[in-house]
Amino acid sequence: MGRAARTAGRALARLTTAQKNEALLAIADEIEAQAAPILAANGKDIAAGRQKGLSDAILDRLLLTEARVAALAADTRHVVSLLDPVGSSFDARTLPNGLRLSRRRIPIGVLGVIYEARPNVTIDVATLALKTGNASILRGGSETLQSNLALIGVIQAALEKAGLPGSAVQYIADPDRKYVAELLRLDKYVDMIIPRGGAGLHRLCREQSTIPVITGGLGICHVYVDESADFARAVDIIENAKVQRPSVCNALDTLLVHENVAADFLPRVAQRLGQHGVELRAAGPALDILGANRHGATVTAAGPDDFDTEWMALILGIKVVAGLDEAINHIHDHSTEHSDAILTNDWGNATRFVDEISSAAVFVNASTRFNDGGQFGLGAEVAVSTQKLHARGPMGLEELTTYKWVVLGDGHIRP
Amino acid sequence: MGRAARTAGRALARLTTAQKNEALLAIADEIEAQAAPILAANGKDIAAGRQKGLSDAILDRLLLTEARVAALAADTRHVVSLLDPVGSSFDARTLPNGLRLSRRRIPIGVLGVIYEARPNVTIDVATLALKTGNASILRGGSETLQSNLALIGVIQAALEKAGLPGSAVQYIADPDRKYVAELLRLDKYVDMIIPRGGAGLHRLCREQSTIPVITGGLGICHVYVDESADFARAVDIIENAKVQRPSVCNALDTLLVHENVAADFLPRVAQRLGQHGVELRAAGPALDILGANRHGATVTAAGPDDFDTEWMALILGIKVVAGLDEAINHIHDHSTEHSDAILTNDWGNATRFVDEISSAAVFVNASTRFNDGGQFGLGAEVAVSTQKLHARGPMGLEELTTYKWVVLGDGHIRP
Repeated sequence: MGRAARTAGRALARLTTAQKNEALLAIADEIEAQAAPILAANGKDIAAGRQKGLSDAILDRLLLTEARVAALAADTRHVVSLLDPVGSSFDARTLPNGLRLSRRRIPIGVLGVIYEARPNVTIDVATLALKTGNASILRGGSETLQSNLALIGVIQAALEKAGLPGSAVQYIADPDRKYVAELLRLDKYVDMIIPRGGAGLHRLCREQSTIPVITGGLGICHVYVDESADFARAVDIIENAKVQRPSVCNALDTLLVHENVAADFLPRVAQRLGQHGVELRAAGPALDILGANRHGATVTAAGPDDFDTEWMALILGIKVVAGLDEAINHIHDHSTEHSDAILTNDWGNATRFVDEISSAAVFVNASTRFNDGGQFGLGAEVAVSTQKLHARGPMGLEELTTYKWVVLGDGHIRP
Repeated sequence: MGRAARTAGRALARLTTAQKNEALLAIADEIEAQAAPILAANGKDIAAGRQKGLSDAILDRLLLTEARVAALAADTRHVVSLLDPVGSSFDARTLPNGLRLSRRRIPIGVLGVIYEARPNVTIDVATLALKTGNASILRGGSETLQSNLALIGVIQAALEKAGLPGSAVQYIADPDRKYVAELLRLDKYVDMIIPRGGAGLHRLCREQSTIPVITGGLGICHVYVDESADFARAVDIIENAKVQRPSVCNALDTLLVHENVAADFLPRVAQRLGQHGVELRAAGPALDILGANRHGATVTAAGPDDFDTEWMALILGIKVVAGLDEAINHIHDHSTEHSDAILTNDWGNATRFVDEISSAAVFVNASTRFNDGGQFGLGAEVAVSTQKLHARGPMGLEELTTYKWVVLGDGHIRP
C-alpha cells in the first residue's frame, strides 16, 4: 500500500488544478450514482452498531440518509471551488549574484489519516488530499467499516474513470490493530500522520510513529473575564462558547473571573447557563458566591482534576482569580494551547493577554467557538493542530502542502 | 531541566528584540573576556582526543584558537544584526463578521539540539535560539565536552548579567547515552528536536522521539547533464559541486548524463575532476566511455550501492541515461530530496525537471552547493531539513518560530 501510494502521489503531484477538479467532480457524480449501495452498506454498520448496543446519539452520528449522501456529493463539489495552493510561489527574489530564488508550494506526498468519526470524514479527507495533490491511506473506526469501504470503492471507481490511479486513496480494511502500528512506521512511504480522535489516539501516534504527526484536537479552553469586561456581552460569549456545541474541542471548559467582579458577575453566568442545564464546578471563592446565589444552576465543588479536564459536555469549571497575572498563570499551567480568550475593555490587559498567551488561537472579546477552518475563512478544515511545528490551529488546504526551493541560474558556481 | 527550560522559554518569549540583542552582546563580550579559560578547556579536549588517537583532521575541527574564539564573539554579534522574526504578523484580514484575524510569529518554546560537531555549534545554536526567544537544551559530542561546558558557562554567566535566566541555555553534561533517550521523550517540556549529525543520529531521533524532529542533513545529490547543456559551464558546475567542499551534505554524489552527449562530455569531466583526484564510479556505458578515455582520473565500475551513497569524499557516481525521463526516475528512486540540479539549455526540460523533482532545493544551471542558509540570504542556518513538514531546505531564524492566530472581536459569538 505504501509503495502504491507513493507512486500515485507522484502522479497526483503532476496534475493541473483543472485535472484534479475533474476527478473531484467525477467523485461527486459517482457518490450520487451509487447512493443506494452506500446506504445499504451503512445499513449494515447501523444494524451491527445496534446489536453492539451503541447509543442512539452515536448511531445518529454514524447514520447516512439520502440527504446526507447528497450532502457528501455537495461537499465534494465545494472542494472543487476552493483555491488550489499547489504551485503558488512565495519569497521570490533575485540574489546579489543573479540567482533567482523562490519557494514553491508542492504536495506533501502521502498522508496517513487515522480517524474514529463519522463516514463523512472519509470523503472529507480524501477530497481535500486530492485537491492538494496528496495520496492518502485512511483508517477509520470499525463502527463504520462497511460505509467507509463503500465510499472508498466509489472514490476509486471515479478516480479510474478520470484516468487516475485508484491507489491515490487507499483504506486499511483489516480491523487488526497491528496495521495501525505498521502504518505509523511506514516512514519510507508516508510523509505525515493526521490522527483525528481522542487523546489516546494522539498519544499512540506520538509514541509509536516514526513519521511526523500532527497532534491536536484536545482543547481545554479558557475564558478570562477581566474587571473591565462588558457583563452582558461576556455572558453571551460564555453561553456561546459553552453551550452552542459542547462536544467539540473549541468549546469552553474553564471560566476565570476577576475577584473584583466575581460576586456581581458569577450569578448572571449561573442564571444563563442554568437555563441550558450546565453544571458548574466552582473552586473556593467561586463556590462561596454561587453557593449563596445559584439561580437554579447545579453547583458543585471543583475536584482536583476539574481544571485539567476537557468536558465535551455541559459542565464548566469556574475559578476566581486575583487578576490578569493569575489568569495567565492558570492558563499556562492548564491550557492545552487550543483556544483561550480574554473578555475586557482594558487596552493594556488585552495586549498583555494576547502577547503572553501562546495558544493556537488567542481571542479578545470573542467566543472560542470561532477557532475553526470554516469560521476563519480557510474554506475547509482537515484538523485543528495544537502542536508547534508546521501548522497551528485550523489546518486548511495550504497546511496540506509543503514547499521546495527553486533556484534558477545561468552557470552559477559557489565562490 | 525540562521544567527550567519551559519557565525560561516563557520569560524569553516576553522579551523585546532590543532586550534579546542586549543579552547577545553580553554573551559576545563574555566570550572575549573568558577567552583564556575557554582555550584551556579546549586544550583538555584536544589532549584527550590525541590520546584517543583522533586524526589530525578531526582534531583540527575540534581545536579552538585565539582567532577562532574571536570569531565566536563576532558570530554572536552578527546574530544581533539579523532581523527578529518574532512578533511579525501575516495573513491579517477582517472577516465578514468584523472579527479581525491575523497570524503572529512566536517562539517555538524549547528546542532540544543534539550535535556531534565542532564547539562553534554550541554558540551558533544557543544564540540563534535566543534571538528567536527560544530556550534550548543542548547535547554535544563527548570529544568537545570540556569546551562546550566552558562555552555554556560563559553564556549562562552573560545571561544572568543581562538579567535573564541562565537556564535559557542548558547542556546535558553527563555522557551517559540514556540522557539522549530521556531528552527525546520530554514532550511535556520540549517542542522540537534538531539533530545535527549523521544518518544514525537522525534515525535514532525519528525512532525514539515523542517530540517532533527536524530530520535532514543526509544529501545524496544529483546533477543531470541534458543534451543541450553548455559543456564548459556544466564542467565548472560539476567541479564546484563535487570538489569545493566534498565533506558536506550539498556536495554532488551522482552525475547523470544524457546518452547523446556522454561520449563527448564525460572525458571532459574526467579531465577536470582527475586534476582534483576525484575517483569516478561509472556504471555500464559510462564505464565503457571512461575506460577508453579516462584522462588521468581513477575510474572503477560502480557497485550496487554506489548510487545510494552519500560520499562525503572525492568520489563521484556516474551514469548515462536515455534522457530526462530516466534522469527524473533515477532521482526519484535514489535522491534523499536534498539538492538536485539539471544543466540544460532546453526550456521545456528545465520546466519539467523543476516541476517533477520535489527535492528541498531544485536547481537549474547552478551548483548544488548553493543550498545553504547563508547563500540563500537567510543570514543564518540552524539546519538543512529534507523532511516535508514545517521547514524544508536551509532553516533560518523564521524556521525557529511558529505562529498563533490572534482574533480580535467586540462581543462576537458564533451563530
